[in-house]
Order: sequence, then structure tokens, then C-alpha cells
Amino acid sequence: MPEIHARRRAALAALLHENGVDALLVTDLLNIRYLTGFTGSNAALLLHAGGDAKTLFCTDGRYTTQSESEVPDLERVLDRASARALAAHAADRLADYGRTGFESQHVSVEEHEHLKVRFDRVELVRTPGLIEQLRMVKDEVEIAALRAACAAADRALAALLEAGGVRPGRTELEVARDLENRMLEHGSSGISFESIVAAGPNSAIPHHRPTGAELRRGDFVKFDFGATVDGYHSDMTRMVVLGEPADWQRELYGLVHRAQAAGTEAVRPGAVVSEVDAAARSVIADAGYGEQFAHGLGHGVGLEVHEAPSLAAAGVGTLSAGMAVTVEPGVYLAGRGGVRIEDTLVVRDSGPELLTLSTKDLVAV
Amino acid sequence: MPEIHARRRAALAALLHENGVDALLVTDLLNIRYLTGFTGSNAALLLHAGGDAKTLFCTDGRYTTQSESEVPDLERVLDRASARALAAHAADRLADYGRTGFESQHVSVEEHEHLKVRFDRVELVRTPGLIEQLRMVKDEVEIAALRAACAAADRALAALLEAGGVRPGRTELEVARDLENRMLEHGSSGISFESIVAAGPNSAIPHHRPTGAELRRGDFVKFDFGATVDGYHSDMTRMVVLGEPADWQRELYGLVHRAQAAGTEAVRPGAVVSEVDAAARSVIADAGYGEQFAHGLGHGVGLEVHEAPSLAAAGVGTLSAGMAVTVEPGVYLAGRGGVRIEDTLVVRDSGPELLTLSTKDLVAV
Repeated sequence: MPEIHARRRAALAALLHENGVDALLVTDLLNIRYLTGFTGSNAALLLHAGGDAKTLFCTDGRYTTQSESEVPDLERVLDRASARALAAHAADRLADYGRTGFESQHVSVEEHEHLKVRFDRVELVRTPGLIEQLRMVKDEVEIAALRAACAAADRALAALLEAGGVRPGRTELEVARDLENRMLEHGSSGISFESIVAAGPNSAIPHHRPTGAELRRGDFVKFDFGATVDGYHSDMTRMVVLGEPADWQRELYGLVHRAQAAGTEAVRPGAVVSEVDAAARSVIADAGYGEQFAHGLGHGVGLEVHEAPSLAAAGVGTLSAGMAVTVEPGVYLAGRGGVRIEDTLVVRDSGPELLTLSTKDLVAV
Repeated sequence: MPEIHARRRAALAALLHENGVDALLVTDLLNIRYLTGFTGSNAALLLHAGGDAKTLFCTDGRYTTQSESEVPDLERVLDRASARALAAHAADRLADYGRTGFESQHVSVEEHEHLKVRFDRVELVRTPGLIEQLRMVKDEVEIAALRAACAAADRALAALLEAGGVRPGRTELEVARDLENRMLEHGSSGISFESIVAAGPNSAIPHHRPTGAELRRGDFVKFDFGATVDGYHSDMTRMVVLGEPADWQRELYGLVHRAQAAGTEAVRPGAVVSEVDAAARSVIADAGYGEQFAHGLGHGVGLEVHEAPSLAAAGVGTLSAGMAVTVEPGVYLAGRGGVRIEDTLVVRDSGPELLTLSTKDLVAV
């Protein structure tokens, strides 16, 4: 889809104009993928504010064929030292690249020293986060990929439950592996992050790593996992109880469920991110569990599983239509068990569009 | 094993003396793991050349318990902005931290700006690669982990072959998934890198990603994969033929096999890395396939699957006892098929110690 990449580059070019730079040296591989579609492991892009005619893409000889098919629409240079090669190119055309920005939050101090030499008399300007700013608002191609990733995760969980894969005697690690394999079978090209399967008291550890601990009757089991499609990540948390839920489990689940609904309801264009966090947090705090909800409400999701914006008390900014975020309140009772419920959703004018569709009723197996 | 980490820190302290700095701000998480055993996702270490009594470790509140058990032997600070907190600490003790090094190949230009403010009057010195220099030579704890990772990969491949998992009709992706699951079953805690399973003409693509392509009778199948144990990676490439090997397959395999043996034989303490590369490369070049071996001979393996040293024509330096490296020549005949054979081994005074033990006879199934 070269058009979508061209459109993204045009949006960035406009941002470069606003920021008063002639061009931007893009070195972060995810940002390069976003702007060009290139998926290899070595590349740089010198994106000119004047548009694609003056923009150069660089990769090395291993990616000759791949870059021809993935990036058919940009002039290409082949050089192993991709960023430095483009810097030297800019230095030779000082009239076009007098002021050039670089991704100062990604470029190391050491690499910067090398680039300064190559850029010669070009004025190198720190321009952190420009592309990340664009990436916060997803286009429909991105949302389709997110939707597909969420669907793969939904189907995997359903298949796991249907096959009786969540049962006493299995270990957290076995269940995690089973779930991950089912994601791959259902269209995921990989794992979004290290899956969390946390049983019994382990469910009270927010980011528990699966262990050899066996699932037991009466356990809460927390699943926090995601699939990837075309480089886009899904992120979902669901709870299962082995057997008939105890009263405290029903109550805790109900509380987090209400908080999650309140947070989701607050997700709309223009909403201040800290207020979205507060909408869910106040439900939990009012019930006396504020201290047991010690993390932010959510985060952006896209080419990275955690990206801007941050839906947290200390978060800044407002939501816009097209942002993809998670809403994931949790309450963790140390030594006993914890509950988190998490969806990935898209901010829409008409209200949030849910991408993770697994039931949020408490599942008992 | 706190002793081993203390020993590594002492070696680094000596290196700081040599480099004329009072301390080193360590921010790379792998380097922090190497020096302290900490496996969390946020930490910094201010390692003083004077030793552990003046060394500070910082992580955040999520890791209170974990860091107490993983890093029992260092004074600890809890702060989310770990590197900046330690920088401020150093600034308050100017007499001890007058000249402090930082990992300039890891710290971004943007983070450096923040650190400069916190370090105040401390002279910040670029000291890239000091820990990576130490990490090149593995201690016996590291070699034990590498050996376990290589064993998990060996056992997984054997189990895959024994179960008839490599057969016509299965796709590359299915076989890759099967192999990865078997690594997990045999003691691997994860996947060392995206496994390569490349069948038929795909075997001629050096870094082919597994696809839905089906294995067929007569195919060469290339497996390049690895396990991880305690954070250490294995890396091995083996070839399988489906059915009776054709003459060209036997010949190509024999050639690469001889090159791999020649490269392995050249691995000894004091060997110049480019000459180790040349020892294997000349075998292939003499047979007229120099152009079809377009990558380096090998690389260091450890906490990263690719680390220093680089065994390549352009590599610099010599091997030392205790280095762990791969030897992996390959010949790739576009459209037809390719062969690579790769071992992970340890440089020893008495000759290389092979860690990957799967047979290097051409396997026909």
C-alpha cells in the first residue's frame, strides 16, 4: 500500500515545516516501517519537507530485493552505514538540508558524534517525538491491523477455553504456551509481549511471569496477552475462575468490571487523559481499594505494545479520534488474588470502538 | 550468585581506573543484569571505581521485592527515573564523582540532555563499550548457561526429527512452531531469535522468515534457531534433506562442512578474527563459491544473540580463551538451495569446546 505510506510522509513533511526544519533523518526502524513499509533490520530515511521527490531511503545489500518490493516509491541508496550515508548525502546538498532534524530520543550520543562529522556544515536539530506524535492517531489501515490482532487473541482464548485448556493440574507455563500457539494458529504472526498467566495468589502480582505453578480449583487465573498482525499489537486481560466463584471473587471482579466500564465510557475525543484515568480510579478508590490499583489505567497501542498516549494520573494531553488505547484497571490483594480487565479500543466520535471482544462476564470453568 | 556479580563489578572497577574515571553510570539493562543479576525492566547502576561500598543501584517500586532478592549486595535507591536519580546523587558528592563515565553508545542524545542537568558540575565522560569489552570473555557461570541453552536446542531438534516432524506437506511455519515448542519443553525459557526454517529454494535466502510454503520431497531444509537459559542465547544451524540427497546437495553440503571445520580449527586464543574468517572463507572461495558466501563467519554469543567479537573479514582484534562465538559459513545458490552449518563454541586453550552437539552429518529423513 504505497499510498498510505506516502500520505503519512506528507503529514510528517507538514510537521517539519511547522518545526522549521528542512528535513528529518529517521533512524528508528519502527518509524521507518510506519513511513515506508520497510520491515528489514537496517535502514535510514532522509525525509525532506519538500516531499518525496527529495526524500531518500537507505538500506544495505541484504535487502535489495525486499526494499524494491516494500519501498517501490522512494529513491534508494544501498549502504551498510545507512544513517551516515544519508548524512553525507545531505552535507553535499547544503542548500536543501541547511537545517536537518534527527530523532534525538533514539540516536545515541556515540552515533550522534559520527553523524555530526558526516553532516558537516548542516545544522543538526534535536526534534524528538515528531513521528510518535503522528503515530498516536491511527489511520484505517492501522486500525484494520489492530482489529485483526485483537481478533486473533479473542479466537485463541475462546479455543483454549473450549478445548478445556484451563484446568486444575496444568501449569501456568503450559497454559501460556498453549494460548500462544493458538494465537499463531488463529492468524497472529507473533506474540505481542511475554504472556501473563497468573493463577491463585500469583494473580495478585500485576506483571507475573508464568511459572511451573499448577492451577488449582478455586483459583482466579489472570490472562494478559496479545497477538501481532502486520506489526500491530493487541493487548487484552481476562479473568477465569476454576469452579464456582467465591463471594470475594465475584465482588472483586464486579468492582473492577464497573471501573473498567467507567473508564471506557470516559474515552472520547477531547477527554483529558488524566480524567479518563480518574473516571475508573474513583470507582475503585470509592470502594476503598485505591492503594491496590497501583498502575496507570492504560496506554496507546500500535506498532509498539506500549506507546503514547499514557492514560495515567500524571499523563498529559487529550484523546483524539483514531487513537488506539487500552483501558485496564486492576485491584491486587497480596497473597490472595487480583483482578484486571483490559480492552484495546479505538477512540471514535460516536463512542469507543471495542477491538477486543471476548466476554467480560466472569468466566467460570 | 552474588559472588560472581561482585567479581564482574571488581573487573569493571579496575577498567574504570585504567580509563581515568571515578565511576560509571550503567543504564543498559543487559549490562546491569550482567553486573548485578537484576532482571527487571527499569534500573540504573552507578558503579564506583572504589568498589561496592560506594556503588549504588536504583530501580522503582514495582521491583522492591525482586531487587531485594536479586541484588542483595548493593545499596539501593527506589526512583522511577533511575538514571537521573543516580546522577543527582553523584552531583551531591562531587569529591567522589568528579569524572563520571556513561554508556554513550546506549544513552540517547535526549536522555543525555536530561542527565547533564542532573549531573550538574560532574564531568561526564563518554566511555562506550567498557562492559561489552568485559562481556566478550565469559566466566564459567555464563558458559554453563550457554551450554544449557545449546543443549535445549540440540534436544529439541532431535525430538523434532524423531517425531517425524520434518516431512513433506508440513509448512515452514508449522515446523518452526513445533521446533520452538520443543525447545520450551526441553528447558529453554524462550526463543533466542525468530527461528529460520527454510525449505527448498528458500534455503538459499540467508535470513528467510518461515512462510506457509510446504516442505517437499527432495528439499533442503535449513534450520537456524536457538534457545535461551538464564538470559543466555544459543545459536545453531543444521540442514536436513527430505529423502535421498541429490549429488549437488551432497557436494554443496560437503563443501560447507569442510569450511566449517576449517573455521573451527582456526578458533584459538590469540587468533586474529579476520584470519579465522579467512580460514573458512578460503575453502569456499577455492571451490569457486566465494561470491555465494556473502556474510561474516560468526559472532559472539551471550546475553545477546549477536555481540562482540565479529568474526568477519573486516573484524578487528583477536580471540581470547573464554570467548563464546559462532562459526557459520554458508553457500547460497539463488533459486536452488543453500547450505549453512553453524555451531556455538567456546574458545579454549586446549582447542574449541563445542556447545552445540547435534550431528553435522547431512541428515536425510
